[in-house]
Amino acid sequence: METPKETMEVGRKLVDFCKHGDNIKAVEALYASDVVSVEAMEMPGMEGKKGIEAAIKKNQMWLDENEVNSASVEGPFPLGDRFAVHYKFDTTNRKSKERMKMEEVAIYSVKNGKIVKEEFFYTM
Amino acid sequence: METPKETMEVGRKLVDFCKHGDNIKAVEALYASDVVSVEAMEMPGMEGKKGIEAAIKKNQMWLDENEVNSASVEGPFPLGDRFAVHYKFDTTNRKSKERMKMEEVAIYSVKNGKIVKEEFFYTM
Repeated sequence: METPKETMEVGRKLVDFCKHGDNIKAVEALYASDVVSVEAMEMPGMEGKKGIEAAIKKNQMWLDENEVNSASVEGPFPLGDRFAVHYKFDTTNRKSKERMKMEEVAIYSVKNGKIVKEEFFYTM
Repeated sequence: METPKETMEVGRKLVDFCKHGDNIKAVEALYASDVVSVEAMEMPGMEGKKGIEAAIKKNQMWLDENEVNSASVEGPFPLGDRFAVHYKFDTTNRKSKERMKMEEVAIYSVKNGKIVKEEFFYTM
């Protein structure tokens, strides 16, 4: 399956934003307004939420809750109009002060130069 | 999206096989007979091939061509009836003696306890 050039372009931009901790800027720049988000586990209050505003809110809630001590962002790995990114985070919960390691694989679908779907694979 | 128990069970078994270099045993034990394989780039001679025999042949061709010096297998990361695995290989091409680093993310779909689809995300 051939990968259109735009898939890799969007993927490289997203990875570049996320490597700099600019996850919200990535959403603003690269997401379609009606983006669909699929999570292995729904964040409380975010169940079934759609669209770019919900995606920004979800990122903001996560950043409000967690301080990121370090992050690794590997990718993009393309397949057709989709690409994969592997994230690893070392975080401290701002409230409980608990330090945690989290990781997830995300699959992004691209259409007309914008991300129309994000799917997050992880365990808790 | 909830992950059925069987998704993680199949995922753990696959990762365990692959960590031991037993990729062909993984296919034999865990793949459905009519498994569908989607590659970022088709291997010459394997275009559009389907089913477990083609999956075994593809793995065998790759192993015949490449000596694996070391491998890292991270996962499984589940989402519903699918799971992700991130592979990194340090290989030496048996013919050209060229040493290479390759990596890819795979998404596997599980149905009735068997892998019915594998999708490989990578660049060359």
